Amino acid sequence: MKLNCDLGEGFGIYRHTDDAKIMPYIDMANLACGFHASDPVHMLESIRLAKQHRVAIGAHPGYPDLQGFGRRIMHCSADEIEAMLLYQIGALDAMCQAEDTVVSYVKPHGALYNQMMQDIGLFEVIVRTISQYRTDLALVILSVPEYETYEKIARKYEIKLLFELFADRAYADSGRLLNRQERGALIDDKKEVLERVECLLKKGYLESFHGKRLYMKADTLCIHSDTTTAVDLVTVLKDLLAKYRDR
Amino acid sequence: MKLNCDLGEGFGIYRHTDDAKIMPYIDMANLACGFHASDPVHMLESIRLAKQHRVAIGAHPGYPDLQGFGRRIMHCSADEIEAMLLYQIGALDAMCQAEDTVVSYVKPHGALYNQMMQDIGLFEVIVRTISQYRTDLALVILSVPEYETYEKIARKYEIKLLFELFADRAYADSGRLLNRQERGALIDDKKEVLERVECLLKKGYLESFHGKRLYMKADTLCIHSDTTTAVDLVTVLKDLLAKYRDR
Amino acid sequence: MKLNCDLGEGFGIYRHTDDAKIMPYIDMANLACGFHASDPVHMLESIRLAKQHRVAIGAHPGYPDLQGFGRRIMHCSADEIEAMLLYQIGALDAMCQAEDTVVSYVKPHGALYNQMMQDIGLFEVIVRTISQYRTDLALVILSVPEYETYEKIARKYEIKLLFELFADRAYADSGRLLNRQERGALIDDKKEVLERVECLLKKGYLESFHGKRLYMKADTLCIHSDTTTAVDLVTVLKDLLAKYRDR
Amino acid sequence: MKLNCDLGEGFGIYRHTDDAKIMPYIDMANLACGFHASDPVHMLESIRLAKQHRVAIGAHPGYPDLQGFGRRIMHCSADEIEAMLLYQIGALDAMCQAEDTVVSYVKPHGALYNQMMQDIGLFEVIVRTISQYRTDLALVILSVPEYETYEKIARKYEIKLLFELFADRAYADSGRLLNRQERGALIDDKKEVLERVECLLKKGYLESFHGKRLYMKADTLCIHSDTTTAVDLVTVLKDLLAKYRDR
Repeated sequence: MKLNCDLGEGFGIYRHTDDAKIMPYIDMANLACGFHASDPVHMLESIRLAKQHRVAIGAHPGYPDLQGFGRRIMHCSADEIEAMLLYQIGALDAMCQAEDTVVSYVKPHGALYNQMMQDIGLFEVIVRTISQYRTDLALVILSVPEYETYEKIARKYEIKLLFELFADRAYADSGRLLNRQERGALIDDKKEVLERVECLLKKGYLESFHGKRLYMKADTLCIHSDTTTAVDLVTVLKDLLAKYRDR
Repeated sequence: MKLNCDLGEGFGIYRHTDDAKIMPYIDMANLACGFHASDPVHMLESIRLAKQHRVAIGAHPGYPDLQGFGRRIMHCSADEIEAMLLYQIGALDAMCQAEDTVVSYVKPHGALYNQMMQDIGLFEVIVRTISQYRTDLALVILSVPEYETYEKIARKYEIKLLFELFADRAYADSGRLLNRQERGALIDDKKEVLERVECLLKKGYLESFHGKRLYMKADTLCIHSDTTTAVDLVTVLKDLLAKYRDR
Repeated sequence: MKLNCDLGEGFGIYRHTDDAKIMPYIDMANLACGFHASDPVHMLESIRLAKQHRVAIGAHPGYPDLQGFGRRIMHCSADEIEAMLLYQIGALDAMCQAEDTVVSYVKPHGALYNQMMQDIGLFEVIVRTISQYRTDLALVILSVPEYETYEKIARKYEIKLLFELFADRAYADSGRLLNRQERGALIDDKKEVLERVECLLKKGYLESFHGKRLYMKADTLCIHSDTTTAVDLVTVLKDLLAKYRDR
Repeated sequence: MKLNCDLGEGFGIYRHTDDAKIMPYIDMANLACGFHASDPVHMLESIRLAKQHRVAIGAHPGYPDLQGFGRRIMHCSADEIEAMLLYQIGALDAMCQAEDTVVSYVKPHGALYNQMMQDIGLFEVIVRTISQYRTDLALVILSVPEYETYEKIARKYEIKLLFELFADRAYADSGRLLNRQERGALIDDKKEVLERVECLLKKGYLESFHGKRLYMKADTLCIHSDTTTAVDLVTVLKDLLAKYRDR
């Protein structure tokens, strides 16, 4: 199981997360592509940092909404989604090529990610668009109980899916994330997060909010980069994952 | 000698030129990449139109200035130029790949083009950046008497240059374009433009404003797409060039 | 009854409508404020044109989405709506003041307008925001059967409402506009449009698609500026309205 | 002598300076207007913070270049400068009015500020534009030996100038700022900065890099908000200025 993290989300003079401190500990860096965050100069810097630490680079495309950080839902047509994905993925990939590396997967950002998980039609547009560009690009999506629905569509377009779990988010018994606004939805106790990950690695399940054992697809674990404990947590998680990976 | 034309320069609901009428008659379409004009949806449409008419596609990157259509000089660092070029070229190239075609050359737009011809350091940054991405991309620049200076640098980075002439612009005896503001700088008489092109094709020179014979490098002829006579002119030019190409 | 029209919706080098030909015939010009269309230079030009023809100037604020021309729904918070309205209205009003004129009303644009008519909470946010800036600004909204609901809220904030009708759109028996996608929703026959307006002026009602007489609040008539017949239609409408105004 | 400071320069989710800690200690807050930094929501927050601490609000307009933070020179025409100033000042002023306060001065930002001090024609465009909007708005410019040239023009348009000095920057004997790149140009020793300010308050001059006494116009002192010592310095300066203001 690999650690993925949203990085390279600064813009111009602004920085959002402490990328230099987090990059050494993760496996996959989801890099913003200039629509919800980042700009060409920052993208190039982020690619160089990822490459230096041998971290796989993913395109992290979002809605064209810098001001709202791609968190505001925008009603876009399939044609608009297709074009904005190719644009963002291609821009990042060209920069990777100039740096002798490559984009190896795609993970939509913010509202686009959430919409993709709620609208199977949008999911198919995204999968199809990626396949039109490069079928060797994987797509990271949320691990959900009905994962086979997604896999069936992805297979049609020859796109590999990577299912991600959140160690610092509580799950309902249904296997869905609790809404952020609900009490207990965010798990900010570092020790508890680590225990949850260890349980997942050792026993193969994540415990729901009400104690149910959830056996979920878990290709990768997403770590939030913008919390105060992010740097602290990521260093410990790396060791934990390495321990189980060696087995 | 090939006809090149700036197309795909609409944005959102706006259109700048009548691309559908011009595309069938040209050889090379310089397509805007979203910084000075165009947007992802329009880029994709423009690629499809070019492909349909078997027109070679060039990336036409500009300064990040939609409002000023990339015509305002912006003081950018070499790092900024490098990053903004890779971003724009890559975005267009990914879209081309999704449409089973490819970007085959680069021609900077507006103020960036003019600055490139006035600052040899900037020219080198542009050539070097292109070579970092793909050395099989040609670069279109203005045909100037001191072309060897440019060729020497381009050879260093293994980039092929294509020198372009303007049939509807007057030249000084020095081989430089007359400033647009000078009287007679723009040649809007269609017959005169055609005579100039025919002279170039038949006798190999362009006549300067004061009647001097200018023997210039001429790989491609640039046709303005935003004049009232653009569509009219381009249809005749195609035939004229075809006539001499067959010889 | 006054004619209102969306104008000043160009951007940079682009123009959307033939403002110089339409402005002389209307009473109220809804001018874009740089978020869905227009830019500072174009806004100033549009103000000067309106002033020259003694046309009342309205702020026409939209979502921050140039690429989508403000037609894409964006999920914005009340705080975001408040701030983006003040920003756009204020920018236009300062320019008006510099030109010795003034913004006299507000009409939201595109998706923001539609959302306002579907979400009474959003309507109240808009009314409240306007009242915080200047209570002498009117707000143009769609004329609907349940107009009293809107008037009640507007009175609370001391804002005057102006109800607008569309002469070139078909109405359901309910007094709601037919969806644009439905057959017959758009009335493009000039003669029919004129007959509808005359009926409204003479007899006080608009005929629904199925022939029902709709007695609607009608402070102003909206004329589309981006149709091929816009210039043609507006000249005739001006005379028609003048005829009944003199009575 | 008053303390002025560039604040409200965040954007979207990004923050640039610790405004809540600096605002209580200054007299004048130069608030970004959405072109080089800030957005409508952040502007409104910044106005509320300034109002809470009874700090005078100034418009801090810049070039339309979020990515470059308004630090890149853009070649704009007089018409473009006029329009972009009115737009930005008006947007901020409308928000101030909605909050029962008002913009009381203008201080251009970054490259626009520097260009204004190098091009007297641009300075006149700026002064004239402000006067077209409100002649009771002051303009903050750099204190220079040839200040009378500027005052003469400002008087013509009935605009009051406020000359600002930088306590943490070294001056040449000519009274001009040393270039930032020169050694010793930036004074980062807090004690030295305070001594310089005290000398200015007590004896009326600032000492140049080579020890010359510079008697400069000094209406206001600019404090950088984005240095590590900003919060620390501003609290001490407030007391120092208060001490001399009471005399």
